[in-house]
Amino acid sequence: MIKAGIVGVSGYGGIELFHILSSHPDVKITAIKSKSYNGNKLSEIYPHLAGSKLECRDYSADELAENCDVVFTAVPHGEASFEYVEKIKKYDKKIIDLSADFRIHEKEVYEKWYKVKHPLPELLKEAVYGLPELHREKIKSAWLVANPGCYTTCSILASAPLLKEDFVDTDSIIIDAKSGTSGAGRKLKENLHFSEMDESFYAYNIAGTHRHTPEIEQELSLISGKDIVISFSPHLLPVVRGILATTYINVKKEIDEKNVLEIFKNFYNTHPFVRVLEDHLPNIKYVSGTNFMDIAVKYDARAKRIIIISALDNLIKGAGGQAVQNMNLMFGLPEDRGLRLKPVYP
Amino acid sequence: MIKAGIVGVSGYGGIELFHILSSHPDVKITAIKSKSYNGNKLSEIYPHLAGSKLECRDYSADELAENCDVVFTAVPHGEASFEYVEKIKKYDKKIIDLSADFRIHEKEVYEKWYKVKHPLPELLKEAVYGLPELHREKIKSAWLVANPGCYTTCSILASAPLLKEDFVDTDSIIIDAKSGTSGAGRKLKENLHFSEMDESFYAYNIAGTHRHTPEIEQELSLISGKDIVISFSPHLLPVVRGILATTYINVKKEIDEKNVLEIFKNFYNTHPFVRVLEDHLPNIKYVSGTNFMDIAVKYDARAKRIIIISALDNLIKGAGGQAVQNMNLMFGLPEDRGLRLKPVYP
Amino acid sequence: MIKAGIVGVSGYGGIELFHILSSHPDVKITAIKSKSYNGNKLSEIYPHLAGSKLECRDYSADELAENCDVVFTAVPHGEASFEYVEKIKKYDKKIIDLSADFRIHEKEVYEKWYKVKHPLPELLKEAVYGLPELHREKIKSAWLVANPGCYTTCSILASAPLLKEDFVDTDSIIIDAKSGTSGAGRKLKENLHFSEMDESFYAYNIAGTHRHTPEIEQELSLISGKDIVISFSPHLLPVVRGILATTYINVKKEIDEKNVLEIFKNFYNTHPFVRVLEDHLPNIKYVSGTNFMDIAVKYDARAKRIIIISALDNLIKGAGGQAVQNMNLMFGLPEDRGLRLKPVYP
Amino acid sequence: MIKAGIVGVSGYGGIELFHILSSHPDVKITAIKSKSYNGNKLSEIYPHLAGSKLECRDYSADELAENCDVVFTAVPHGEASFEYVEKIKKYDKKIIDLSADFRIHEKEVYEKWYKVKHPLPELLKEAVYGLPELHREKIKSAWLVANPGCYTTCSILASAPLLKEDFVDTDSIIIDAKSGTSGAGRKLKENLHFSEMDESFYAYNIAGTHRHTPEIEQELSLISGKDIVISFSPHLLPVVRGILATTYINVKKEIDEKNVLEIFKNFYNTHPFVRVLEDHLPNIKYVSGTNFMDIAVKYDARAKRIIIISALDNLIKGAGGQAVQNMNLMFGLPEDRGLRLKPVYP
Repeated sequence: MIKAGIVGVSGYGGIELFHILSSHPDVKITAIKSKSYNGNKLSEIYPHLAGSKLECRDYSADELAENCDVVFTAVPHGEASFEYVEKIKKYDKKIIDLSADFRIHEKEVYEKWYKVKHPLPELLKEAVYGLPELHREKIKSAWLVANPGCYTTCSILASAPLLKEDFVDTDSIIIDAKSGTSGAGRKLKENLHFSEMDESFYAYNIAGTHRHTPEIEQELSLISGKDIVISFSPHLLPVVRGILATTYINVKKEIDEKNVLEIFKNFYNTHPFVRVLEDHLPNIKYVSGTNFMDIAVKYDARAKRIIIISALDNLIKGAGGQAVQNMNLMFGLPEDRGLRLKPVYP
Repeated sequence: MIKAGIVGVSGYGGIELFHILSSHPDVKITAIKSKSYNGNKLSEIYPHLAGSKLECRDYSADELAENCDVVFTAVPHGEASFEYVEKIKKYDKKIIDLSADFRIHEKEVYEKWYKVKHPLPELLKEAVYGLPELHREKIKSAWLVANPGCYTTCSILASAPLLKEDFVDTDSIIIDAKSGTSGAGRKLKENLHFSEMDESFYAYNIAGTHRHTPEIEQELSLISGKDIVISFSPHLLPVVRGILATTYINVKKEIDEKNVLEIFKNFYNTHPFVRVLEDHLPNIKYVSGTNFMDIAVKYDARAKRIIIISALDNLIKGAGGQAVQNMNLMFGLPEDRGLRLKPVYP
Repeated sequence: MIKAGIVGVSGYGGIELFHILSSHPDVKITAIKSKSYNGNKLSEIYPHLAGSKLECRDYSADELAENCDVVFTAVPHGEASFEYVEKIKKYDKKIIDLSADFRIHEKEVYEKWYKVKHPLPELLKEAVYGLPELHREKIKSAWLVANPGCYTTCSILASAPLLKEDFVDTDSIIIDAKSGTSGAGRKLKENLHFSEMDESFYAYNIAGTHRHTPEIEQELSLISGKDIVISFSPHLLPVVRGILATTYINVKKEIDEKNVLEIFKNFYNTHPFVRVLEDHLPNIKYVSGTNFMDIAVKYDARAKRIIIISALDNLIKGAGGQAVQNMNLMFGLPEDRGLRLKPVYP
Repeated sequence: MIKAGIVGVSGYGGIELFHILSSHPDVKITAIKSKSYNGNKLSEIYPHLAGSKLECRDYSADELAENCDVVFTAVPHGEASFEYVEKIKKYDKKIIDLSADFRIHEKEVYEKWYKVKHPLPELLKEAVYGLPELHREKIKSAWLVANPGCYTTCSILASAPLLKEDFVDTDSIIIDAKSGTSGAGRKLKENLHFSEMDESFYAYNIAGTHRHTPEIEQELSLISGKDIVISFSPHLLPVVRGILATTYINVKKEIDEKNVLEIFKNFYNTHPFVRVLEDHLPNIKYVSGTNFMDIAVKYDARAKRIIIISALDNLIKGAGGQAVQNMNLMFGLPEDRGLRLKPVYP
């Protein structure tokens, strides 16, 4: 049994990770940490877990490293990961960080977008970007995995298969993304107050201001070999779970929709959690509760543009599920172990 | 491995049963039947199951009985269960019927409320009412289990613990129940059209007209030893899943809330799926995705009335989950096998 | 033109009152007051009012009394109404208070339920309870009107027509009420966070603990001439607007549903905003955006119980609309002036 | 008083038009027509109108022309407008058609996209496209106005101000649009069933297949003087009302966001229902219940792309409200008469 610890269990990302790990056949949860809820039972923080005897503690980095084979850090950037990562390394344990702290390879880029100094820049090169569909082999031997953001997984995987194709205009990528509210966390905000959010829909942080932008650009640039600049436009949906991204890419010459579809099917052929759809378009409800990302690709021949629709559950394939997928790879388990989750439908 | 068949997999009850059975460690699904979708892949009926290779067939009763150890019938009353039940018996297999066809012990009562003739009245005495919290021992040896309705499970279990207490006025029971829309099924109706149902809330079939009434009265009467008549008022909530019932019972003398709470805790002591809450009131969201029924009891001393709040996921503890709980009992498995489901929260 | 001032325009009650008064043909809004938003444009507090030039000021009681013929106070109990009411009286102007401060006739009852001392008990006798369907004539000559709460309007009007009938058991009244979230205000709370509230439903403050209880009991007792004690059970719905109450009253002898219906029709015959329905049951969506209260009455002959369903828009007939209805009466205008509001449907 | 008739009052577009016209100070509704509900009271079709005495009739074209000064046709394309338009013309009355039948200037384009033969192609040149912000003067003297679709109003007005600017790349226009469900009408469909649509979000008819595409291209081409081809991607939101469009346009050289904002402010300077926002981005909830279109414009300097967000209430500015705005212009009334509607907020 893998001994797993969760830092930041009181957030939505942390609790979903807890749900998934709790039913993983090869995992035993040995520590759940929360600073603000030190000493509280999990059921006091989350009444849906009534009956659970587990208690949050404010574990030190040493305690975590001693008690766990792997530590998941699900806290905001610049907060907890820095504290733990060195200890974990010293104890020769593994860490999967769900924050942004080790996702960006260039210290300067991280510091510019996140407005904090990075205290461990030398580790940026050791960290592996935890997107199994792109970096499966590297993840297998990593000790420090930077788990991608929810928007980014959905965005990167939508255009990744096309970026080596010469018919693609890599300067034209636009990602129009729509997310449920759980991605914004459990912290109270006026725009997330039910009476304000219900029957509501809006864009925010558009025009090159959302922090997931550099992460998407980094990964797309790595594939294409060019410096890619995108427009990324996030919107907030009045639903709890799900992200759907609509990606636009111009083509330089006439193409055939079938060929594009083949490119996607080949690219994701060996990846158990990406479903390339042929008969219908993705819907956030079709992936709710699961670790799947659904994807469909269409060619707009009139406008000479490829349109890709991708969808995932932001708390699973966009967070905790992907983290467990990474853990499986890091520990030599089948990639889908504990991740064939019961869908939520209807 | 238990070989299981599902009749009526295309409805919401059927598909949730399919979800649960699919991840049950001791079950192999050997037949999924649908008359209307004969020959269709499951993924054509439910796109969230994209990738599934399973196909619906219009199996005969013989084929089902031969291929399955247990058949679950999730079709409307008077429809399929009659067709199968005799064959299943002949082949010495088991059947769990999710319709109302075998829930009512008295033929006359069934025929009055359901307006159809009952073709197999002699089996009404053999069928066991599948509410494990009341009939666990009988279920263990049953071959024909009548799985309770969603409203009824939530209603019966709310007042069951009190009905043998002499301080209770058994003529005063009122059940004000509120259900999500999935209980109304997948069939299109104007009141369930999104633009009509969203931001909507209303009562329907009140004042002694809802078909779940006799089922609730039958079980409460059995416990109390008196003929109990209730007022049952169903309402429709603009959510997909969940039932919450608010039950009112007058008391004949002053009582102490703590004692009432003890009665409930003792009653459900050995039942893994009923959680008697002490610190908060039930919420449909706290049981979503699980086989739990949450229950809390309060005493309104000013009005001399006990108020019980109970909540469950109508498609799980109110349908498919309970059916699997019954199957576990019928096949000698631990009652909670395959039913420690990942909660859906937030 | 009636010069009107609004105290507490930044809350949901205040802003809906502002919406209604803005299009009232005989009203000019001369002051909008907010302590917390002193100096802010209304459009900064409420972006849906982009383009409005109006500014909130922290007016003194004198300024309000001088500039207004009528002042509406839409602030929490114990807060602003006390400050203004004496000045308003001195200046011989009118006040319509949407808080609970003048609703309860007995000082002791108010202080027990609201846990604050009442500084102006002598005015409790002068204040008129602003439910036009019960107190129309008194309201016409009042200078101080205590506008009822949202739950209370919906609850009182549901059983009022029956309380003088001798076939009614006045000890048996149960009100099971369900409200949208706007009734809980704009203040951030965890249970009102979208990710928590969406797909959620629960009871709260049941068993004689909700503050609207004494207000309902006071008015029902006045009609019946007896001391009435009720059970009032509020629930929170995942919708923004609307209250629906299901009221249960036992009868002492057999009755005829048609006669009960006649009693209701006669009672509300001259009241423009109560619609007694015969062909369908109320739905919160059918009154959304309007000043109507819909009501239907059924007799459960099996259980010897009358069931009444009533519904209204909590921010209109349950708050601002009713306040304007009172204003119309106080100023000799037709009761429905400015209140034939465009329905919100679908 | 203008005598107005409504054809197709039983649809969502028709009933919202009815709501608006009912409170218009210069209008008397003299005929409401419905084929399917001939003889039915409006309150039987729409219970929220309980109390209304109005009855639907299956009026002939002659009867309508005789009884009305203006007829609004709110029925699907190819259905009723053709029947009435010639009679209306003969009687010298006016018609405002909310279908697509007279929106497209070129017969061939109409027939290609709508797959029906146009029986009155000569009238296509007489019809005026009823977008007051573009064609106010022509509308004033028109007898036949083709009221724009909901998606199209939101889409056209978003890029209209830029299309004469030489820094704009008119080949690059992408419109990513999101609509509430009321735009899909009252007809039952599986994807609009509450249990399917709730907590759902998806794209449909993308890649040059949605029928609003040619209408948008026609109007944008007219402004720019070039043949514009766009990508238009509609999505369905789990809300009843509202459309929000995110429009992307590349620029050919560096620009300044402030200058772009000025272009928009100047363009909409004299138009009472377009609000150019400077301090926040549009939200469908901020325009709900009103005839406003909110618009904001941002420059993504990294990607050299202008991003425009526009939002409106699809049943008002996107249908009935705009129709009344056109009527006001056609009858010489102030453009905003009867259209200063009470907002729905929260």
